[in-house]
Amino acid sequence: MSPKITTELLKHLRQVMKNPRYVQDPVQAYIVPSGDAHQSEYIAPCDCRRAFISGFDGSAGTAIVTEQHAAMWTDGRYFLQAAHQMDSNWTLMKMGLKDTPTQEDWLVSVLPEGSKVGVDPFIIPADQWKRMSKVLRSAGHDLVPVKENLIDTIWTDCPQRPCKPLITLDLSYTGVSWRDKIVALRSKMAERKVMWFVVTALDEVAWLFNLRGSDVEYNPVFFAYAVIGMNTIRLFIDGDRIMDPAVREHLQLDSTLEPEFKIQVMPYGSILSELQAVGAGLSPKEKVWLSDKASYALTEAIPKAYRYLTPYTPICIAKAVKNAAETEGMRRAHIKDAVALCELFNWLEKEVPKGTVTEIVAADKAEEFRSQQKDFVELSFATISSTGPNGAIIHYKPVPETNRTLSVNEIYLLDSGAQYKDGTTDVTRTMHFGTPSAYEKECFTYVLKGHIAVSAAIFPNGTKGHLLDSFARSALWDCGLDYLHGTGHGVGSFLNVHEGPCGISYKTFADEPLEAGMIVSDEPGYYEDGSFGIRIENVVLVIPAETKYNFKNRGSLTFEPLTLVPIQTKMIDVNLLTEKERNWVNEYHQKCRAVVGAELERQGRHEALRWLLRETEPLAPVQ
Amino acid sequence: MSPKITTELLKHLRQVMKNPRYVQDPVQAYIVPSGDAHQSEYIAPCDCRRAFISGFDGSAGTAIVTEQHAAMWTDGRYFLQAAHQMDSNWTLMKMGLKDTPTQEDWLVSVLPEGSKVGVDPFIIPADQWKRMSKVLRSAGHDLVPVKENLIDTIWTDCPQRPCKPLITLDLSYTGVSWRDKIVALRSKMAERKVMWFVVTALDEVAWLFNLRGSDVEYNPVFFAYAVIGMNTIRLFIDGDRIMDPAVREHLQLDSTLEPEFKIQVMPYGSILSELQAVGAGLSPKEKVWLSDKASYALTEAIPKAYRYLTPYTPICIAKAVKNAAETEGMRRAHIKDAVALCELFNWLEKEVPKGTVTEIVAADKAEEFRSQQKDFVELSFATISSTGPNGAIIHYKPVPETNRTLSVNEIYLLDSGAQYKDGTTDVTRTMHFGTPSAYEKECFTYVLKGHIAVSAAIFPNGTKGHLLDSFARSALWDCGLDYLHGTGHGVGSFLNVHEGPCGISYKTFADEPLEAGMIVSDEPGYYEDGSFGIRIENVVLVIPAETKYNFKNRGSLTFEPLTLVPIQTKMIDVNLLTEKERNWVNEYHQKCRAVVGAELERQGRHEALRWLLRETEPLAPVQ
Repeated sequence: MSPKITTELLKHLRQVMKNPRYVQDPVQAYIVPSGDAHQSEYIAPCDCRRAFISGFDGSAGTAIVTEQHAAMWTDGRYFLQAAHQMDSNWTLMKMGLKDTPTQEDWLVSVLPEGSKVGVDPFIIPADQWKRMSKVLRSAGHDLVPVKENLIDTIWTDCPQRPCKPLITLDLSYTGVSWRDKIVALRSKMAERKVMWFVVTALDEVAWLFNLRGSDVEYNPVFFAYAVIGMNTIRLFIDGDRIMDPAVREHLQLDSTLEPEFKIQVMPYGSILSELQAVGAGLSPKEKVWLSDKASYALTEAIPKAYRYLTPYTPICIAKAVKNAAETEGMRRAHIKDAVALCELFNWLEKEVPKGTVTEIVAADKAEEFRSQQKDFVELSFATISSTGPNGAIIHYKPVPETNRTLSVNEIYLLDSGAQYKDGTTDVTRTMHFGTPSAYEKECFTYVLKGHIAVSAAIFPNGTKGHLLDSFARSALWDCGLDYLHGTGHGVGSFLNVHEGPCGISYKTFADEPLEAGMIVSDEPGYYEDGSFGIRIENVVLVIPAETKYNFKNRGSLTFEPLTLVPIQTKMIDVNLLTEKERNWVNEYHQKCRAVVGAELERQGRHEALRWLLRETEPLAPVQ
Repeated sequence: MSPKITTELLKHLRQVMKNPRYVQDPVQAYIVPSGDAHQSEYIAPCDCRRAFISGFDGSAGTAIVTEQHAAMWTDGRYFLQAAHQMDSNWTLMKMGLKDTPTQEDWLVSVLPEGSKVGVDPFIIPADQWKRMSKVLRSAGHDLVPVKENLIDTIWTDCPQRPCKPLITLDLSYTGVSWRDKIVALRSKMAERKVMWFVVTALDEVAWLFNLRGSDVEYNPVFFAYAVIGMNTIRLFIDGDRIMDPAVREHLQLDSTLEPEFKIQVMPYGSILSELQAVGAGLSPKEKVWLSDKASYALTEAIPKAYRYLTPYTPICIAKAVKNAAETEGMRRAHIKDAVALCELFNWLEKEVPKGTVTEIVAADKAEEFRSQQKDFVELSFATISSTGPNGAIIHYKPVPETNRTLSVNEIYLLDSGAQYKDGTTDVTRTMHFGTPSAYEKECFTYVLKGHIAVSAAIFPNGTKGHLLDSFARSALWDCGLDYLHGTGHGVGSFLNVHEGPCGISYKTFADEPLEAGMIVSDEPGYYEDGSFGIRIENVVLVIPAETKYNFKNRGSLTFEPLTLVPIQTKMIDVNLLTEKERNWVNEYHQKCRAVVGAELERQGRHEALRWLLRETEPLAPVQ
């Protein structure tokens, strides 16, 4: 991977930063955040402005360009990748390290007095604007909204914004109709005494209307906003996709409906002016509910006194708790996904020794097997297929320049998942196709102990996921090992593979308490730079637990693994496991055998079934 | 405990709330916070205004009185106590419960339009003022500072503000001279480019000048402020205590010194006008550093553009990391404290069966034994001496109305500590003087497992204490039990028994990372309302740990118990312990024996020594 040469681009950008055609006054710094106007984690090619200007295309990072400097903030997952992809014009700011300044502090340290710092008000979340603006102002600078995106002005071959057809989901997938979701939302609005709710996150629009799209790769969403009033529903969406008869029927656009369920379809680009009109027409005490992460532009459309901002919207919270139809869908999706991976691993076991399987070939093969499964739509993220030292690059994606051949001498890490119409999967397995070293087995076993500690944890109802993060690290910590990422994230139901408001990470405090029906990943790891990477990831469902004393009737919770793919026993040093941990592995494998075995049988995949049976043999007793 | 009758007092207060002698315009509500002008947790009698007006004297609570209502906000530790101590004029607002409104929201719901809400600007922290003021303003009300404290105007027999003699601490106790502390502080100020630092917390003033006092019970502090400039030192303190020759010499008040170390002593009451003068004389870019918890009055003295506010001051952070002299002092103090407790428990074992030992008698006896130790100054907090159901009241303090007699049929919980000139102690032991039930032993053993899990935890340098909190709960959680308080707090060195910026609690996120030399408590518990309470508390020192891989040279940390008091083995169900936990208990008891045994021997306390030897017998092997 050679770095992108950005000298000319930066020169260009610094010119437009002073060009009165685009900025009222010259800006001495310009911020290029990661996201799009919906604060999405995964974005469409036309929104990859930070990657365009810097070359760094990881999922998280913020670029700031001043007249003298160009700096990139990103987190531990991407330190190596960013260093590889950026040329010497760029300074890498390693977030999470003690001596790394915040973006605000860095700006204050490098800017001349009384500077203006520009940013696209649609791309920057309101809460971030507020924080940065405050620090900059107190140091005598100004954060200013620049209406025209300055990257777009220099990006001559910028791709079009996608506008793909929609998929309608019926009750068998969603469990609840969009009308009932609107009713529930309005009741939350009434509780908080707000008159309007603005839906800005793409997965929230998709979930609310039981629609899916494919505007953003891996994320079955479509570009749209919605504004829900107590008696009105406005959907801001472009293109003729809304003319599709199936969509029209699903949304009942041509039916005679009670007026409060009649959807008014409006152009995507009219959201700001429509919201400004709503803002202008408010009577005292009429509040408008927005996520505090909505864009600064939309937030400003509502006068301050009328805003009701919360970190998580009621849709975000409702969406996280899966109903019976969604849970059953997720179970089905994970069984199909396990079938595909049994096929893949069986195939790899035979092919790797021949020396012809590269990381890309393996990733493609995984996709091929997945695509054979019913209701397969697409992958849920770019497959991380990495062997040897590439495994230590946490969010690695193989490209021809880095593509390594799998061998019997290196650890192979595969982190992959798919979107099925009934659910979203995300699974990581770490394998060795030869004989792992004692050290590799030792590290793998600590990671496994951490995985089990979370998966088998019992905790009271109302516990926040971040309180479980240290359980995943304890065995590693005992030996002086750690990993620099969180332990788990929320997972959508045929939606984004990363979703809030719950998760398992030491980095947050503001996560919502876990409750039965929520789905998160459990994925501790260990990474040895230049050598190997290990991660063991299951998607797990929060379920009620049976405990002796049940927290004085507060209720007990634990996790049930939805992912049912064998964990390679060859990598386990059984002597490092406790009896309880050994039983966990054996019971987990027993379940893989029973559930996935039956499906392999049903699909007539006998060779993969034999592989599954071999891989799920009980662990040898502790010596 | 009968409630305080407050009808007349409230009538009186409501009169002064409208009296133009005290308020510019009538205030429709008056807030009486818990703290003093230094935002202390423990306060002097003259500052117990909230207790005076309401009768409720717990350590945390805020009273708000309007023309119609009187309401008291307090947390779970004090629900029972507050309900007992307040009469029917008062409404108890149970903080932490879902349906309890915040103070701001409640005010908005009860106040007539356009109300004024008064508060003493010296008592309310600036960050709280900001939050309340914002909510009130957005609802059309005003938060206004009332210069004269309205409680003081009706409190006819208000005690005098204490002004007790000072204690000077030499280098053998402090390790660092006050001059060197000033030098270090100024270098932190230079790093952040601030010209002035305002010391508002009483323990920070005491630590900085290596002085102690006794103005507040249990806390060896004295009423003072300090303002440190790059070339000046101003100490605001009252009374002739500064005329004490030892103090004058310690502070070098009569020596010829470099001007930047010359201390100007000024009256305590002149802080506001002096700070206003500093504020008025600032040139652009000259910042003044204050804690964001400093009073609104002092914060407002500095124009907004010149303020530099942080949640933790550099003194708070430096104070938390104990140097070698302080650590050695803490060790000595804990050995003496253990001697006193061995004497006490030996005495209790003999006396309890006679049925004559009450909670108060036991607490007094504990103080008596402690006071026999060298350099004993006072207790470090009100002794929690509680038996049976009283043990379930987490911050219980025995009073004649509740005083229960210890017996061989109930669990006894003693949470106590002392101030010695060389260190501060805080220890909880839970004992049974008869035969504990299987259930009591089970609960005790889970608490012990949690205590050990924290105490023996190994974690990377830079880990925040709150990430260890769940380790203390895991064993309890497995059986559906939990406790509703944090696991640990920072402990001062001959200073406040509770101090920031570190701790071990699920409730915070903003704690500073643990580093070697910090001292915290490790005190999980379990409480069965109406029946018993269990808590096992050691004070522990953060020390470097030896690990196999040492976190890629980031460094490993663990804890060393400073508290060396036997944990009653009779209460342990050995079969619930792992081999590792059993070894921990045995090694801990071995250390108690060796270290405290030697001191008991030296002090000729042979009977207590025999008790110690009996109580530290190794645990029976697991059956």
